[in-house]
Amino acid sequence: MTATATTLGATPGEARAEFRAGLVTPTAGWCAGRTQANLVVLPRDWAWDFLLFAQRNPAPCPVLEVTEPGQVEPLLAPGADLRTDLPRYRVWRDGELVDEPTDVVDLWRDDLVSFLVGCSFTFEAGLTEAGVPLRHVEQGRNVSMYRTNRACRPAGRLSGPLVVSMRPVPADLVATAVSVTARMPAVHGAPVHVGDPAGLGIDDLARPDHGEAVDAAPGDVPVFWACGVTPQEALISSRPPFAITHAPGHMLVTDSRDVDHRLA
Amino acid sequence: MTATATTLGATPGEARAEFRAGLVTPTAGWCAGRTQANLVVLPRDWAWDFLLFAQRNPAPCPVLEVTEPGQVEPLLAPGADLRTDLPRYRVWRDGELVDEPTDVVDLWRDDLVSFLVGCSFTFEAGLTEAGVPLRHVEQGRNVSMYRTNRACRPAGRLSGPLVVSMRPVPADLVATAVSVTARMPAVHGAPVHVGDPAGLGIDDLARPDHGEAVDAAPGDVPVFWACGVTPQEALISSRPPFAITHAPGHMLVTDSRDVDHRLA
Repeated sequence: MTATATTLGATPGEARAEFRAGLVTPTAGWCAGRTQANLVVLPRDWAWDFLLFAQRNPAPCPVLEVTEPGQVEPLLAPGADLRTDLPRYRVWRDGELVDEPTDVVDLWRDDLVSFLVGCSFTFEAGLTEAGVPLRHVEQGRNVSMYRTNRACRPAGRLSGPLVVSMRPVPADLVATAVSVTARMPAVHGAPVHVGDPAGLGIDDLARPDHGEAVDAAPGDVPVFWACGVTPQEALISSRPPFAITHAPGHMLVTDSRDVDHRLA
Repeated sequence: MTATATTLGATPGEARAEFRAGLVTPTAGWCAGRTQANLVVLPRDWAWDFLLFAQRNPAPCPVLEVTEPGQVEPLLAPGADLRTDLPRYRVWRDGELVDEPTDVVDLWRDDLVSFLVGCSFTFEAGLTEAGVPLRHVEQGRNVSMYRTNRACRPAGRLSGPLVVSMRPVPADLVATAVSVTARMPAVHGAPVHVGDPAGLGIDDLARPDHGEAVDAAPGDVPVFWACGVTPQEALISSRPPFAITHAPGHMLVTDSRDVDHRLA
C-alpha cells in the first residue's frame, strides 16, 4: 500500500489502524502537529540501565513515557497496541539486527518494558513554524548525523559517544533556532554546539556517520543537536540479549500534541 | 555550633566540611547561588520504582542526579560524602521514622542508591531576583504545603497525591512568577495552578498539611507549585524496608549553580 494525502491527514488513531492493518511507510509528515516517538523495548532486567542512562543524558535521550512490564497500550496513544501499530520494527539479539518485521506480536513477553523517546520531528515542526528552513527537507534527504568526541555519562552496562544531528541554519536565524528548541527540552532541547564541527571531533561534514550529507546554502552555519540515535547506539553496543526498536523513520504516531512539549 | 555570616558565605565545599565536622543547622541562605538538593537513599531493589515515579511525575520529583549503588560522592558535589555532609538525616524503616542522626556512616550499604532531587530554594532565588516577594520569607515562616485531590501517576509500589507549595503573589507579578519558574523545569518548573484553591481540593489555606500558614497581602493571589514532599510522601506510604532522606530544611549544598538549571 502507498500513503495518500488522505492517510497523511488521518487522526493518530486512524494512522495507527492503517499501520496495524499492514501499511508500511515512513511516518514523516503524518498527522501534522501530533508527536511521533522513538520506541525502545527491553527486558525488565535492562530497563534500569536504560532509564538511568536517559536520566544522565536527557538531551539525547528524552523519555516521554515508560510502560509497565508487558503493557502494550501507552498513555500517549490511547487504544494503541505497541506490538502492531508501528509500520515497521527492528528486532535485536545480542546486539545484532536479526529481523525487520511489521509487527512483534509473536515476540512479545510479559517482562518487556517499552520506552517512548522524543524525536526531532517535533522540534523541526517548531523550526518550520518559526521560519527556519530545513535544508535536508528541501533537498529530500535524511538529516546528517555524526558521532562526536564527547562521551555520554555511562549508566550500568550502557556507554557510548554523544551522537548529534546537524542542520545548516542561516546565520541570522541561529538565535531563533536556539530559542525555539530551547523551549522543547522533551524533544532534545537547545543545540549542544553551534558552528565549529572540529570542536566536536567532526572532520568532514560531507561524511556523516548516519543519514545523508546535506548541502549548506551560502551563509549557513552548522547547528548541532543531541540525537536520538545516541541511546540506540549505546544500547546496541552493550549487547542486551533481546531488544525491539522502531525501524528508522517508522515511528509511533501518538495522540500527544507537539505544542504540549513546549514550555510555557 | 551556630551558623555565622562567615559560614553562610562559605563555598559549597567549605559548608559541607562544616556539616561533616558536626555543625547542625538548616541550610536555607547558605552559599547563595549554589543549588541545594533533597536527598533520598533507597536499596537498589526500590530504585527502579522511585526513578520511574520521578519520570512519570517530573514536576514534583525533578531528579538532578542518581548515584551508582554504594557510591557516596555525587558529580554535583565533588569531594562530598553523602553519608556525612548533610547537617541532619532521617532514617526510615518500613515507612516509620526511626532516627534523625547527623551522619549515616554506620548505616551505609553497598546496595544503596542515592537520588538528588531539585528543591524550591533554587526557583525562589529566581523569583527574588525578578522582584517577586516571598511572603513566607518576609514572615520568617516555612512555606505552606498542601495535599491536593490530584493523584500522581503511580509507578510500581509508589503512589500518592500531588503535594503543592503555595506562595501568595501580587496579582501584577503572577505572570512574572510563571515566566521565571517555567524556565526552571529541573526545580519544579511553572506553577501547576494559579488561584482557586478549591480546584485542587484545598478547603482552607490557613490550615496547610505541611509547613506553616502564611499571610497573604491584599491583592495577592495564591500560586501553587509542585512540591518535593510529594515523592517522599509516596515513598513513606509504600513502606520500603529501609530509606534515608535529608531532614527537612537540612539539604545537600552542591557545587552546581542555580543558573545552570535555567533554560537558555
